[in-house]
Amino acid sequence: MLPDLAFFDEIADAAARETLPRFRAAGSVDNKWSTGFDPVTEADREAERAIRALITDRFPDHGILGEEYGDVGLDRDYVWVIDPIDGTRAFISGLPVWGTLVGLYHHGRAIMSMMDQPFTGERFVAGPEGAFLAHRGQRRPIRTRTGRTLAEATLMTTSPFLYAGATQAPYQALEGAVQLTRYGCDCYAFAMVAAGHIDLCVDSGLKPYDVGGLIALVEQAGGVFTDWQGGRAEFGGNVVAAATGELHAAALEILNRPV
Amino acid sequence: MLPDLAFFDEIADAAARETLPRFRAAGSVDNKWSTGFDPVTEADREAERAIRALITDRFPDHGILGEEYGDVGLDRDYVWVIDPIDGTRAFISGLPVWGTLVGLYHHGRAIMSMMDQPFTGERFVAGPEGAFLAHRGQRRPIRTRTGRTLAEATLMTTSPFLYAGATQAPYQALEGAVQLTRYGCDCYAFAMVAAGHIDLCVDSGLKPYDVGGLIALVEQAGGVFTDWQGGRAEFGGNVVAAATGELHAAALEILNRPV
Repeated sequence: MLPDLAFFDEIADAAARETLPRFRAAGSVDNKWSTGFDPVTEADREAERAIRALITDRFPDHGILGEEYGDVGLDRDYVWVIDPIDGTRAFISGLPVWGTLVGLYHHGRAIMSMMDQPFTGERFVAGPEGAFLAHRGQRRPIRTRTGRTLAEATLMTTSPFLYAGATQAPYQALEGAVQLTRYGCDCYAFAMVAAGHIDLCVDSGLKPYDVGGLIALVEQAGGVFTDWQGGRAEFGGNVVAAATGELHAAALEILNRPV
Repeated sequence: MLPDLAFFDEIADAAARETLPRFRAAGSVDNKWSTGFDPVTEADREAERAIRALITDRFPDHGILGEEYGDVGLDRDYVWVIDPIDGTRAFISGLPVWGTLVGLYHHGRAIMSMMDQPFTGERFVAGPEGAFLAHRGQRRPIRTRTGRTLAEATLMTTSPFLYAGATQAPYQALEGAVQLTRYGCDCYAFAMVAAGHIDLCVDSGLKPYDVGGLIALVEQAGGVFTDWQGGRAEFGGNVVAAATGELHAAALEILNRPV
């Protein structure tokens, strides 16, 4: 049985009780790896714990794939994919463009999504009934925007320096083909594709929990969300979200052009 | 006579009435220049018109320097510096990191500042009495954070590709010296310095209206705001805002190191 969208409200509220009080508060930042810089806050861990408790209580036969704790039952029919704080670098920099991501996969395919930004009060949810944005007490359907060519498009990505090796030239070609590129918004950028404010979002080297809460959101809003080869993106990797099929095809053509 | 901070509330409210209903609404985007891409929305023009009307009514003997309309009395003792929407690219991309900037200069020196973000409901104001953030009905003093070395610092800038020619190597050296760099937030990044969430913000090729509403905010919060040579930054150019004098000195040393 599928949860209804109201269950995502419960999840988001429980996560926000852990994240929001710690946003912009002085707090410890651990380094997850000994090399590189990947801050993980207490908020991250406590929010995932709260989300897992709700899911385990309501859907004990579902699997769970999370960022912070071990995986449970990934071979089950339904698997929840959780990133309690996507955009931890934004979070620790005080920027309101991080989000709590929760997705539900059925037989490995994303069918429901949530991206919640509790500081701005924006809650993006999607399921078989469509994609919606709740804000200031009102929930409205959202749609990707249409009618723009690649040359008129706005593209977002987390950072131009994500792209090294084989991805560098294709990424730079895509940036050169659009009108405007913006950096730095992680999951928030994918939500802007779904809500019709930008046209393309690309990213590289993602984990399943980076995309699990976003795929159904973009798809149910009318967009396309795949890997750079046009295949399903539920496991992350190099991904592209496009407002329309035409933009998606144009982006993939550039990303796969022989060098 | 100086305005009190409540006058900035009047200004911010008047501007928000023009900007907020147009944020995320389909709207015309003009190209200001025939080359390049500098969107100016109706919101930009109408907000500046509203701000100017309030200032002219209340302080008819003050000068005004704005982004969208002609300058008035720049040789007067007091000059208001207005950017109705700093971060128009963020604005047209649906991102809540643009702001309405208003500063008051006395004999060419910034003495009062406002950065208002009406979508998130954050209003940063500063005057001789200090720097403050009003949010959700509460106003609290803000301070830059202290105790971080350059190697522990978070840096923000609008885009790494702002830096060409003589500024490129110094900028890249600074980015290489800090722990974390984030892109894409225009005025919002300077506000994060003032509010104690990041440590450094640099930018290049700014106009007076890009900085007028930010200088007193950073200074009154305990930070330092200068050009890359350490001089006053009221006219824009290449600027650096730092949380502490120590970080400012360390950043300037790198930005001015012989190549």
